Amino acid sequence: MYKNILYQISKYIALTSPEKEEFTGILQGYSLKKKEFLIEAGQLVKNQYYVVKGCLNAYYLDELGNKHILQFAIEDWWISDFQAFFDGSPAQLFVEAIEDSVLLGISNDALETLFFRIPKFERFFRIITTKAFVSLRVRVLSFLQNSGTERYIEFCTTYPKIEERITNYQIANYLGIQPESLSRIRKEVANS
Amino acid sequence: MYKNILYQISKYIALTSPEKEEFTGILQGYSLKKKEFLIEAGQLVKNQYYVVKGCLNAYYLDELGNKHILQFAIEDWWISDFQAFFDGSPAQLFVEAIEDSVLLGISNDALETLFFRIPKFERFFRIITTKAFVSLRVRVLSFLQNSGTERYIEFCTTYPKIEERITNYQIANYLGIQPESLSRIRKEVANS
Repeated sequence: MYKNILYQISKYIALTSPEKEEFTGILQGYSLKKKEFLIEAGQLVKNQYYVVKGCLNAYYLDELGNKHILQFAIEDWWISDFQAFFDGSPAQLFVEAIEDSVLLGISNDALETLFFRIPKFERFFRIITTKAFVSLRVRVLSFLQNSGTERYIEFCTTYPKIEERITNYQIANYLGIQPESLSRIRKEVANS
Repeated sequence: MYKNILYQISKYIALTSPEKEEFTGILQGYSLKKKEFLIEAGQLVKNQYYVVKGCLNAYYLDELGNKHILQFAIEDWWISDFQAFFDGSPAQLFVEAIEDSVLLGISNDALETLFFRIPKFERFFRIITTKAFVSLRVRVLSFLQNSGTERYIEFCTTYPKIEERITNYQIANYLGIQPESLSRIRKEVANS
């Protein structure tokens, strides 16, 4: 259960055995069946979640009922409605399992206690937040360039192993293009 | 010169006088005239920059010569080509002064030394990166919702004091809309 998350952490900071125990002691396990919701719009968001196993997506549902996918997450990714998590406002997003999933949740209070007791966790979370921030800049850039092809390349770079686990509809939705444009773009990229 | 940045830091961590001195000692001052470049595409990016005074924008220039504004920065904001800064790749962006500007630069090496010597700076940079990450999620969401109005509201929230300092053309470019749509959206928002 904790092997992968401890391995991810060990890339950036060295923990003693008691520190590892203290950390895993504040994590809460969650299991979701495919199509179950982790977060629904309007709720308060207590946790951010590390994906032990599975695949999820975070999306916004507009007034017309259209889905706009903001993020996918597979193993080793973190997912939440981060705005709601950090500022305590109600969730704007739905987070839904695309596959049966196993997650580890950590609350804001538990995180603050952790930073106080084991300050080197500041470093770990600084580094993973910086990586998430830089990926998101690349995504905004791909939107500004306004080309489906650039967005598809950004998607493949951000989620190198996810393509066979989600539908074409979901990829097209994430890219903000029509599903029929996706196969044209794929051919373009394959031939370039 | 250092008053504002030390004040920003003091919101999140408490520094002793020697720590303040050590920190300000690794900052490098930069002055830019309006329209001068801080970063040009293709360069290696040594620093991230805190804005002491002035106004800048970071943009991507496509092959047709069209500008796509990714970020504005005014006093107390940080600006750089963050992807290039963190992963050492050549800059994809231009960062240009919109007004005469004064900046403080910090290199990646200096930052790592700082984290080693004064670990509580991990906390400061974690918090400001988290804030930047959350703002950017809001921006991506406003793009996915695909409405100029949502993007304008996001712009006004993100940059509450900037509107009178940049041109309508620049705001429209940031929003990814035509300049003539901007005045319609402004009226809509004013009347809502």
